[in-house]
Amino acid sequence: MLCATSAQADEGQWQPYQLPQLKSELKRVGIAIPAEKLADLSKHPMSAIVSLGNCSASFVSDAGLVVTNHHCAYGAIQRNSTPEHNYIANGFLARSRAQELPGGPNALVYVTDKVENVTGRVLRNITPSMSGKQRSEAVERAIKALIAECESDKIYRCAVPAFHRGLEYYRIRQMMIRDVRLVYAPANSLGDFGGDIDNYEWPRHVGDYSFLRAYVGKDGRPADPSPDNVPYHSKDFLVVSAAGLKNGDPVLLAGYPGRTSRYKLPSEIRYARDAAYPAKAAEIQADLDVIAVSTKDSEAAAVRYASVVKSQNNVLKKTRGLMDGFARKDIAAIKDVQDAQFRAWFAKQPNADKKLLAELDALIAADIALSDEEFGYSVATTGDLLKSAATLYRLALESARPDAERETGYQQRDLAFIKARLTRLEQSYVGGVDQARLNAALQRYAALPKSMHVTGLDALLPATDAVPALYAQSQLGDTATRLSWMDKGASAIKASDDAFLKLAVKLDDVAQSLKERRKELDGNLERVIPQYMAAVIAWKKSQGKPVYPDANSTLRVTYGTVSPYSPKDGVTKGPFTTIEGIVEKNTGKEPFNAPANLLEAIKARRYGQFKDPVLGTVPVDFLTSADTTGGNSGSAVMNKHGELVGLNFDSTYESITKDWYFDSDITRAIHMDIRYMLWVMKEVDHADNLLKELTIK
Amino acid sequence: MLCATSAQADEGQWQPYQLPQLKSELKRVGIAIPAEKLADLSKHPMSAIVSLGNCSASFVSDAGLVVTNHHCAYGAIQRNSTPEHNYIANGFLARSRAQELPGGPNALVYVTDKVENVTGRVLRNITPSMSGKQRSEAVERAIKALIAECESDKIYRCAVPAFHRGLEYYRIRQMMIRDVRLVYAPANSLGDFGGDIDNYEWPRHVGDYSFLRAYVGKDGRPADPSPDNVPYHSKDFLVVSAAGLKNGDPVLLAGYPGRTSRYKLPSEIRYARDAAYPAKAAEIQADLDVIAVSTKDSEAAAVRYASVVKSQNNVLKKTRGLMDGFARKDIAAIKDVQDAQFRAWFAKQPNADKKLLAELDALIAADIALSDEEFGYSVATTGDLLKSAATLYRLALESARPDAERETGYQQRDLAFIKARLTRLEQSYVGGVDQARLNAALQRYAALPKSMHVTGLDALLPATDAVPALYAQSQLGDTATRLSWMDKGASAIKASDDAFLKLAVKLDDVAQSLKERRKELDGNLERVIPQYMAAVIAWKKSQGKPVYPDANSTLRVTYGTVSPYSPKDGVTKGPFTTIEGIVEKNTGKEPFNAPANLLEAIKARRYGQFKDPVLGTVPVDFLTSADTTGGNSGSAVMNKHGELVGLNFDSTYESITKDWYFDSDITRAIHMDIRYMLWVMKEVDHADNLLKELTIK
Repeated sequence: MLCATSAQADEGQWQPYQLPQLKSELKRVGIAIPAEKLADLSKHPMSAIVSLGNCSASFVSDAGLVVTNHHCAYGAIQRNSTPEHNYIANGFLARSRAQELPGGPNALVYVTDKVENVTGRVLRNITPSMSGKQRSEAVERAIKALIAECESDKIYRCAVPAFHRGLEYYRIRQMMIRDVRLVYAPANSLGDFGGDIDNYEWPRHVGDYSFLRAYVGKDGRPADPSPDNVPYHSKDFLVVSAAGLKNGDPVLLAGYPGRTSRYKLPSEIRYARDAAYPAKAAEIQADLDVIAVSTKDSEAAAVRYASVVKSQNNVLKKTRGLMDGFARKDIAAIKDVQDAQFRAWFAKQPNADKKLLAELDALIAADIALSDEEFGYSVATTGDLLKSAATLYRLALESARPDAERETGYQQRDLAFIKARLTRLEQSYVGGVDQARLNAALQRYAALPKSMHVTGLDALLPATDAVPALYAQSQLGDTATRLSWMDKGASAIKASDDAFLKLAVKLDDVAQSLKERRKELDGNLERVIPQYMAAVIAWKKSQGKPVYPDANSTLRVTYGTVSPYSPKDGVTKGPFTTIEGIVEKNTGKEPFNAPANLLEAIKARRYGQFKDPVLGTVPVDFLTSADTTGGNSGSAVMNKHGELVGLNFDSTYESITKDWYFDSDITRAIHMDIRYMLWVMKEVDHADNLLKELTIK
Repeated sequence: MLCATSAQADEGQWQPYQLPQLKSELKRVGIAIPAEKLADLSKHPMSAIVSLGNCSASFVSDAGLVVTNHHCAYGAIQRNSTPEHNYIANGFLARSRAQELPGGPNALVYVTDKVENVTGRVLRNITPSMSGKQRSEAVERAIKALIAECESDKIYRCAVPAFHRGLEYYRIRQMMIRDVRLVYAPANSLGDFGGDIDNYEWPRHVGDYSFLRAYVGKDGRPADPSPDNVPYHSKDFLVVSAAGLKNGDPVLLAGYPGRTSRYKLPSEIRYARDAAYPAKAAEIQADLDVIAVSTKDSEAAAVRYASVVKSQNNVLKKTRGLMDGFARKDIAAIKDVQDAQFRAWFAKQPNADKKLLAELDALIAADIALSDEEFGYSVATTGDLLKSAATLYRLALESARPDAERETGYQQRDLAFIKARLTRLEQSYVGGVDQARLNAALQRYAALPKSMHVTGLDALLPATDAVPALYAQSQLGDTATRLSWMDKGASAIKASDDAFLKLAVKLDDVAQSLKERRKELDGNLERVIPQYMAAVIAWKKSQGKPVYPDANSTLRVTYGTVSPYSPKDGVTKGPFTTIEGIVEKNTGKEPFNAPANLLEAIKARRYGQFKDPVLGTVPVDFLTSADTTGGNSGSAVMNKHGELVGLNFDSTYESITKDWYFDSDITRAIHMDIRYMLWVMKEVDHADNLLKELTIK
């Protein structure tokens, strides 16, 4: 069940506080920064590491300059692009601060400044006799209170995520900077060279970087976007190393990995492998097909759905990679062995609750059954208008209650995000396409196996021939109308004759019932799994191995070495690619249409100081054995001294199953070599002002 | 025009006598055998190197035991296979000499024992005033006399091939052993693992080896196959090294490379690239399609054409590889530069014949035009019956003349080969398929561009609706009838009412006229090209570089090092594969259906003494930079001491253009590691008797 936390494997997404336990490992790998310093979020280099919400990033000057991936800044670039100023195609470079462009409501910089173990306070009111739902609600209440306390100063955004699914809770305090501007992005054909075709692949030749800048009020505190704001004084930032790495060199990587499932039971792996992933892949493919057909005659419509398509393609490729990986290596069988070893050990422990594992197995079976229904619900409610209507009705109902009692996601603190989501549709929604998606999804839902049909739902769903009428009789496609409903209250919505609001009202009971059942189940899981994880940790401890929690979008540190891998016998991939490989791949056609000035600099061999002595040319991307996952995009890759040498942006296709099992032979993260970025800035884009702002060693 | 004979490139298929000129090169690479010894065909190791006609091989015991590729012994294996004893599928191992099986008339071992420079004698009667045809015929007469003299002892097969297209002629004397028996062949699923799919590819996992044994009469001289024959006493043989090689180690490779075109003019490369290869590929594909359709309902017919299909697929893949290679790298442009450098140098030579290059260019243009017609003729005369009839009629005409005056290929010395070819059809011909091939080929011929139509031919060809009648009115499909015509004389053939013989008589004039034109042209080329090559060699000599002649199926030596290559930026291939890669590729379906006992030995990790210390397992195949081509199949790959460490069997797909231009970055030959063979013999096939016979160090 646990993947062996092998010392040699570089496995582990560690909470910073754990690093002192890993001293000998860090030494083995060759990290020179003391573990105690790495554990301290107020000290260099960790205080330079920030989150963008779904991506990771880092400060690289004391004036709030942030470097992250091009694909993480894509929204900000897209938002500022017009046919006249096509920053996606041509890139953008602010030659002065005055030229920096607003990143928009979704461009946010989170600076984690405090992490406290609040397990005791979260579980204070929990009693053994509570039902699952009672337990779940009690935990939620405690967390809300902890968050409210933390957010009493409005500059903070706080969270209390569970670690090991409830064994521990930490309160994470993040200063949220909400005036973030676009400073520099290379042309898309450089920053996303290879596009979706190369996504998850190696060899890779992407310059996946962009620069943003955090702005705050004149008082130094986060403020709403305003021309009066000033650059945030980032007292700590990463020094950039132009010395580069070579094969075998150590790296440190810090960022915000999203989700992993490393501690799942074999039965959960089999469910994912045999049922959940195949269903998910089929569903996404079908939805993408509908989008493709219904946008094929309108370039404007295609553009609106481009980002949905891109992101769904990414999820699809990842899902297929998981399926391929499971087919290639029988991870369930490996976990069977580990699970059996654990159970044998557990049975021998004097104080072990003998019923624990049977109870766990039963809960997991229930979780699997409920997951099937939740999947069915997500299929049946495909499309943006129905989702918006459901959000609006739920928001109205929750808003009628005291803030502390509202459902998570519908509190006062969430309103700005809800509004941003509802607004964003303006750029990514087309009525005809949405209608085609819902129509097709309803047919797919009808064809799903019985286990995926949601209790009580089928009778409430519109017949497919009623779908056109829904769109004809709804005004939610209009942004102003959509937003206007945010304040109108539940009775107004119930009285409305907007077809989607009426449908949302009708479906709400079923959706709530599904949520209640989830709460009951999660409450029980949160009671049982922590006991199970405590046993697992004790078992591991008995073998001298520390245990890291599954990723949960909180700040983590991982380490590894620059290293190639063998995808098959007789073939070695990596660890470096070079700029000559760009010419090799370049066809002149998207996504292999590198900018002319880039090609010209390569052909002229204008390597300058960024020529690698071993490669004899400028490196582009490289591989390491660091343990990453989605959310680590943009993470700082540092050398042993904590200097910035790369940006993490992807993993190889063979690595995708690492979310379930870290196979050290083939798991490799893909990073952009910072020398490539510096070289482009100097020789191609002439971003001299930024080069001057960076501290380059 | 010449590829630079770069010292570092390991380029060169050297005549053994040239090796002393390469002393410093051999030393650089790390070859320990003195160059003088390597140059002496009567000494070890060269006296252990033999030819099988189209393949290379070597003696590995003093009792005539020969090791070569599985695909080189395929005919002998196939010939002995029956549904009851399917040696192709199951392999064959003679546990005693009595069990060794007859290899058939095409299984021959040639031992080269004398190579003399006979240029003076070949050119003795040539005068400057001769026409091309006169010159060509004079050369042919001289060569025939030299051969007849050499073959006065019937145990020899002699040849006088031109080197540098007529600058030099060497007489090669080979003892031809004609009782060759099959000793041991692994199962096809091991000896051809990966089949056509993996052909020309890397990574490779083929155990491409088989053992034959040369038998002679009791007097020690070659004799017709007979149970009374005894194993040939091969006084020299290669010692087998089980120590193996590692990345960077030197190798020597000796064998009989077939044809290269390294000294062609840029215009010839462009003709091959733009016209000849595309036409050839299209033609082969079309013929293969016809065979596929017309054999699809009969397994028996498919089996008969299996070897034609296999060999044509191989030619097709090679042709496409050439086209892809030319598309990838502009070899013509590289040769343009070299050609220009040569011409500039040549123009400055005081004694240079200023008209030489213009004359050469004109002859090359004529050669290209004639090649077009020759291609057209080969298309129009597709199919076995028409070819057999043409052979029989020509043989009858030639037989009427004194032996020395007969056309090459139709002399007394050729009769056994002609008979073997005419007999072999029995196993590889089906009337209906042949008819479909001819029918389709006639239609394709009609559609060829005008330049490919043969002067005088079109009016003589049968209309496609007349094709069925040809087959209905011919008895040549019957082997006994076919062979009976070998003795009947031209007038009997002319009087015959066999439709194919009648057609052959009708076409003979056109065929002869094409041959005459070829003689005239070749005579002129053989007059001009040697002068040109002499100049090229002088030019190279002025740069301190020796020049090797194009391959011409004579014994050559090449050297190189074990080395990987990068097919594209960020990816490295080789230099070794391992037995675990077999399991990785194995699907259980042909051609990836490794034998169960092989898979079992791999899974049990029964590596024995053949485990490589670096790889940690048993190697299978490996790559070197040695310079090889078709005909080098089965060539001994030796370590620096001349011990057998591998068998050459293929090149990578990216290497295919090496026949025109040796690109040292990507040209790699593929060898089977002898340790894999030894391991299979010991752990899988238990060929203990043979292991005992070998001398393994």
